[in-house]
Amino acid sequence: MKKVPVGVSARHIHLSQEHIEILFGKGYELKVLKDLSQPGQYAAEETVAVVGPKGRFDKVRILGPARSKTQLEISRTDSYALGIPAPVRESGDIAGTPGVKIIGPAGEVEIEEGVIVAARHIHFHTEDAKKWGIEDKQKLRVRVIGERPLIFEDVIARVSDQFALDMHIDTDEANAAGVKNGGEAIILDE
Amino acid sequence: MKKVPVGVSARHIHLSQEHIEILFGKGYELKVLKDLSQPGQYAAEETVAVVGPKGRFDKVRILGPARSKTQLEISRTDSYALGIPAPVRESGDIAGTPGVKIIGPAGEVEIEEGVIVAARHIHFHTEDAKKWGIEDKQKLRVRVIGERPLIFEDVIARVSDQFALDMHIDTDEANAAGVKNGGEAIILDE
Repeated sequence: MKKVPVGVSARHIHLSQEHIEILFGKGYELKVLKDLSQPGQYAAEETVAVVGPKGRFDKVRILGPARSKTQLEISRTDSYALGIPAPVRESGDIAGTPGVKIIGPAGEVEIEEGVIVAARHIHFHTEDAKKWGIEDKQKLRVRVIGERPLIFEDVIARVSDQFALDMHIDTDEANAAGVKNGGEAIILDE
Repeated sequence: MKKVPVGVSARHIHLSQEHIEILFGKGYELKVLKDLSQPGQYAAEETVAVVGPKGRFDKVRILGPARSKTQLEISRTDSYALGIPAPVRESGDIAGTPGVKIIGPAGEVEIEEGVIVAARHIHFHTEDAKKWGIEDKQKLRVRVIGERPLIFEDVIARVSDQFALDMHIDTDEANAAGVKNGGEAIILDE
């Protein structure tokens, strides 16, 4: 049985080094609060505020390290609260997505694009993927074992020797399934 | 193909006549704002505030007519915002569920129980159910055709000659599927 741990992604933001310095000051470096399941990735101690036309969130967790482009990942519920019509996209695929205003202790920045609802996906280490016959970008059907069982379709496989086995869903998806961080999912065979 | 329209239930409340009179005044009658898909059911013009230990919602829509027992139906997301650990239950099955404070223009009431996350379900008119070989309380697997396709399992069939064909899911479930009110679902055969 192809069992995968479930990681629930709450709203969070990835920042470019340029934006980190605008928001927190010249030469600023993020502090590690907690390591994440993917090697080298971490939740930072720092948070920022994000502001949309209809609402704002005051403490959005920054995930580090810095990336080449700033990207805010929210749930569909969050998108209604902010008034930002974020599309469902894979991480990094931000061309043509809406922007948002970001406020830090040292300054603020308005990004032109970068707000997405992250498409659900599973990170596979190359060895896990090989063992199970799964290829990068393959779309999978995955049953999540929660209080309200369901099968997610179109779950994107992402394979790399830099990844650790983990399924990433957002809070809407987790709540719909009645599953929490650390829950369990099964990849179905057809 | 067993096609069913999707109705997305936002948070709402059903009130007993006794509670309507406490909240809105002696002899008060709800005003119809809009008829709902189920015969005789309507969204009322009136709203109430509901207050939990962690948060409140100021404009919760009342659905009429009055019921024998007051029942607040929220999403899991809402339950975290209110700080009320509502269980997933079928409508009417409120024994042992948490309570909530309800505030209206003429008074307020604290119910001892009645806050639930409604279990997803499909209303079938008796004739629809007979045609498709579906029985009351049967658990179904249902694919929802949205931006993010998924299959809900354990969808409860509710059959009555008072019902009109409609699948009811909450906002978390709708957002996880990327479907809106008036969307489409297909009952799967096994």
